[in-house]
Amino acid sequence: MRPQTLEWLGGVDGHLRLIDQTRLPGVVEFVDCRDVATLWHAIKTLQVRGAPAIGVSAAYGVVLAAQASATTAAELLQAIQQQIDYLATSRPTAVNLFWALERMRSICIAATSAVHPEVAIIREVLLREARAIDDEDRRMCRAIGAHGAALLADGDNVLTHCNAGGLATSDYGTALAVFFSAHEAGKRLHVWVDETRPLWQGARLTAWELVERGIPATLICDSMAAHVMREKRIRAVVVGADRIAANGDTANKIGTYSVALAAAAHNIPFYVAAPTSTFDLALASGAEIPIEERAVEEVTTPSGTRIAPAGIGVYNPAFDVTPAALVRAIICERGIISPVTPANIANQLGPPGMRS
Amino acid sequence: MRPQTLEWLGGVDGHLRLIDQTRLPGVVEFVDCRDVATLWHAIKTLQVRGAPAIGVSAAYGVVLAAQASATTAAELLQAIQQQIDYLATSRPTAVNLFWALERMRSICIAATSAVHPEVAIIREVLLREARAIDDEDRRMCRAIGAHGAALLADGDNVLTHCNAGGLATSDYGTALAVFFSAHEAGKRLHVWVDETRPLWQGARLTAWELVERGIPATLICDSMAAHVMREKRIRAVVVGADRIAANGDTANKIGTYSVALAAAAHNIPFYVAAPTSTFDLALASGAEIPIEERAVEEVTTPSGTRIAPAGIGVYNPAFDVTPAALVRAIICERGIISPVTPANIANQLGPPGMRS
Repeated sequence: MRPQTLEWLGGVDGHLRLIDQTRLPGVVEFVDCRDVATLWHAIKTLQVRGAPAIGVSAAYGVVLAAQASATTAAELLQAIQQQIDYLATSRPTAVNLFWALERMRSICIAATSAVHPEVAIIREVLLREARAIDDEDRRMCRAIGAHGAALLADGDNVLTHCNAGGLATSDYGTALAVFFSAHEAGKRLHVWVDETRPLWQGARLTAWELVERGIPATLICDSMAAHVMREKRIRAVVVGADRIAANGDTANKIGTYSVALAAAAHNIPFYVAAPTSTFDLALASGAEIPIEERAVEEVTTPSGTRIAPAGIGVYNPAFDVTPAALVRAIICERGIISPVTPANIANQLGPPGMRS
Repeated sequence: MRPQTLEWLGGVDGHLRLIDQTRLPGVVEFVDCRDVATLWHAIKTLQVRGAPAIGVSAAYGVVLAAQASATTAAELLQAIQQQIDYLATSRPTAVNLFWALERMRSICIAATSAVHPEVAIIREVLLREARAIDDEDRRMCRAIGAHGAALLADGDNVLTHCNAGGLATSDYGTALAVFFSAHEAGKRLHVWVDETRPLWQGARLTAWELVERGIPATLICDSMAAHVMREKRIRAVVVGADRIAANGDTANKIGTYSVALAAAAHNIPFYVAAPTSTFDLALASGAEIPIEERAVEEVTTPSGTRIAPAGIGVYNPAFDVTPAALVRAIICERGIISPVTPANIANQLGPPGMRS
């Protein structure tokens, strides 16, 4: 049994259990979020990470917020709105967080606007919506896997950066879903895994998921990807995304842009696998995507051992933006967007109100 | 006082003292090489590293080899030749190692071929030659610094990968010499330092050298370089080299090729700074340069903490090759080679016999 990335235990008075991704693969340990502050901290410190998983967790976070004692619906709504605003401060780049929170806010406002709004019913409605987001995420992953697998052939050598696997979603993943799905269809793959400094999501999480599923994989340092492309003839790159602008510019884990440039230089197709909830059509281009900067200790003190001298400056952006021109296709749950143009994106996603 | 990278203490019966670069910057400790085996181990484990520093150390290693007890010159020559062959197995990529060993072998053979060869004189000749190589290295670094500094302007933002500084040479460096020399000439620079996984020569050694000299510098993960190029408008990249083929293809620390591709994509000049002893004109192109693969633990277990799961494959090439087409100029002690073509290289280096 593969441990669940995230799981809501119980009913409206239940809680969210997360696998602590900061301890993997050495330790399989869970974080029980029984209040919003614990979840906020879990998102902030990457105990749960990956744009879709953050979104689903945040949705359940609103269910936790709804456990606040309240005698009237209006009182409850106020408490929930406050906690939604608080959760939205946990991380800035992945848009799924804001997408899920806004969806929960809308349903909450709708439920509160009923003729006779009842606190108990609002709580039920919110849990139902969070579960729906969770279920959609699971179905989305399978659909992305199926669409993406068609792009890969038996014997392919592929590369991925960071972790866009089952740990980055409710289950199964986005970029890794493409590999899992191709593998399940009997295509033999070999996956090159970028370690993904500074927090080693590739070495720790992607490597773990691939070993667990018995897919041949080789770990490399991020700086080796270009060399491996030339030497080993990589056939495709597939990565996830944290936010995609209306023109297809894609924010993803720092280092993705470097991989995309190397892929372009070697004429290797570079694919982004992400759900429609990762698109932010309000942003015309990637230049508008806020890029999180994280603590300098992630760079200077890997695994608790200081490597850099005192007095050195440090820059630690957690994401970068890959321009749409470098992306051969975006694989989403509705199908393949290619070429990656504003028109094709708008066509695939439909009018904003239609997105689920 | 800056500690010496390497220093021969005493006369023909002296020994080689190295700063232990695996402990820097946290610990300043020295390795006293009183026999060839200790030096072989120091080169193998990167206690001394950097192509020019390996070459100079190996030259002194031949002086250590000459301390073998021998009654005849022929006997001594045999012992020395054996130790030269042994030292040549320590690391495969940096050609300066073989260059220095062959130069020492030649002088040894010449001294042994004298009409009345004497053991004591051979030992003197070898020490003199090793000291000459050491002195040339120090002068070479200053010349590279002076030639390269002319390529930089006041206010420039530059980037380097790995460590091609005073620690990679007898003193002062190659790529870093360019920055040091520009800095000493009053040009204000800011240096972006790639951490250089897996062994962090950038984070540990280059950062340390720049802080020591008071040059503003910012440490980043290797995967951030492309992002920083786009965001911060880097004006030039300068790196060292471990071996340069006759056509200008350049082997350097793994990750260099990735930086060169990113620089090309951003139209940023990419410079290689290296002495003529780093050229290997016997090789037509970089495809012929042997690339060292090192222990997988360097990748899986940084600073002694295991990050990767059991069962994952690992690939750990220590170098990559940047094609000449991506190199704007090679800065060597004799001047600037640009454009980097076989003819310009041959012109600058002269016939093989003429190289010092």
